[in-house]
Amino acid sequence: MKIVRRPAAMRALVRDARRRGKTVGFVPTMGALHDGHLSLVRRARRDHDRVVVSVFVNPLQFGPREDYRRYPRDHRLDARLCRAAGCDWFFLPTARAVYPERFQTFVVAGPLAARWEGAVRPGHFGGVLTVVLKLLNMVEPDTLYLGQKDAQQAAVVGAMMRDLDLPARLAVAPIVRERDGLAMSSRNAYLGPEDRVRAAGFPRALAAAAALARGGARDARRLEREVKRVLRLETKPDAIDYVALVDPRTLLPVARLNRRALLLAAIRVGRTRLLDNRFLTPSRGKR
Amino acid sequence: MKIVRRPAAMRALVRDARRRGKTVGFVPTMGALHDGHLSLVRRARRDHDRVVVSVFVNPLQFGPREDYRRYPRDHRLDARLCRAAGCDWFFLPTARAVYPERFQTFVVAGPLAARWEGAVRPGHFGGVLTVVLKLLNMVEPDTLYLGQKDAQQAAVVGAMMRDLDLPARLAVAPIVRERDGLAMSSRNAYLGPEDRVRAAGFPRALAAAAALARGGARDARRLEREVKRVLRLETKPDAIDYVALVDPRTLLPVARLNRRALLLAAIRVGRTRLLDNRFLTPSRGKR
Repeated sequence: MKIVRRPAAMRALVRDARRRGKTVGFVPTMGALHDGHLSLVRRARRDHDRVVVSVFVNPLQFGPREDYRRYPRDHRLDARLCRAAGCDWFFLPTARAVYPERFQTFVVAGPLAARWEGAVRPGHFGGVLTVVLKLLNMVEPDTLYLGQKDAQQAAVVGAMMRDLDLPARLAVAPIVRERDGLAMSSRNAYLGPEDRVRAAGFPRALAAAAALARGGARDARRLEREVKRVLRLETKPDAIDYVALVDPRTLLPVARLNRRALLLAAIRVGRTRLLDNRFLTPSRGKR
Repeated sequence: MKIVRRPAAMRALVRDARRRGKTVGFVPTMGALHDGHLSLVRRARRDHDRVVVSVFVNPLQFGPREDYRRYPRDHRLDARLCRAAGCDWFFLPTARAVYPERFQTFVVAGPLAARWEGAVRPGHFGGVLTVVLKLLNMVEPDTLYLGQKDAQQAAVVGAMMRDLDLPARLAVAPIVRERDGLAMSSRNAYLGPEDRVRAAGFPRALAAAAALARGGARDARRLEREVKRVLRLETKPDAIDYVALVDPRTLLPVARLNRRALLLAAIRVGRTRLLDNRFLTPSRGKR
């Protein structure tokens, strides 16, 4: 595995590979890699001749009061994990190379970014789109891999790729969970032992709504209330930012589970924000 | 010359050419082609194996009270001129293909777009950047050709290409002028015979400032005043939107002509907006 720091070097490596007929899969990350990221790397490895993993903690997608500075960084460990998962090129651009002086051109997201994370974190998705577009232009992959854990991010990036005619295709891989069901996230490392136990109630709350849906429940409010009920019982979150049953394509709320829908949620446990989501399917049974 | 309408077909043609080692030059236009455009096509022809010219009147870059609807359109004539100038692929995407339903991702320009045209036409450069980025992603050229007549556009697009790490390079070609000096523009067609005569005073006003500079004048206000003086005398414009001596890199006003600077101007003659610009160099002599 080669460690690449300069964008121009990254581009040259990929262009040379492409000239020789190789295909390229790309996994953009902010480091602090876990099995969720690595599942993307392994999938890219299966699908492509060359695999690029970038690690770049993008200042543009953090709000002024967010955790940019304390976001976990361990490039040596990340590099070891990437190598083991089959990465060929480990791309580590500097903030100065990504945002040089007089940088001034930004991508702005549309209605898909207005609610949920976009409402809680103003400007976040613009920052995500700008850096993802830049990385796509540096790497020029055939496929971009993102995780379903950040469902809205995947939707917003997918819209950008279509809207701006990017030649790469998007692959979204399923959430990878800890043994107790907690969705893997670099931010889980912030959780102290007690908070970590509380956090395990989060996926159980989504599962409780899924169980109701399997039993025939279709009313969105009832399903959302069930998530909140179990959260308050098991997790006692410091805040519930949102729990919403939404159309997977538009991310707009739906009133009833008449077709496959996405149950999106974000909570705070201590100072740590946790996201999770789960697809719900209407039960075929009566009611 | 092949006429290409579908973005996917355009991409496939270029990708196939690139696979066979060909280089590609690209001239984006809004049609109503004149010798300024054709000078870009001929230059792309000299520099590259394949030449793409797009004609797309981009609704996104017109303000609500601007001339989107009446902007001149004559694809047959444009196609004939392009073929004669050496175009291989004449790309005519539809508005529906460029901006499909649920289109929602935009590029926004920075400080380079704040003044001059950006101030007179709010949102204009965001619309330009969004469509140019889309076209660059559809065509994937080696070189993008723009004209110096729209100097601020070239600067703003250049900043985008650098900021968003686009792999193409930008080539900006000199202004092509009518025999009486008027900068070629599709909008010149709007000028009635009397207004056309008045418009010829515009380049003479810039030339008058250049003559002052050659004589040793360096004070920006004095040079700008000279442009306005000649304009009022010869063109009697319906409005002078701006006349400004600026740094060619930042487009910020300069107080003195101590190094090469750009004299930018926009006026209205009747209902027609005219742009022109001219590089000024400080005279070596005493002042």
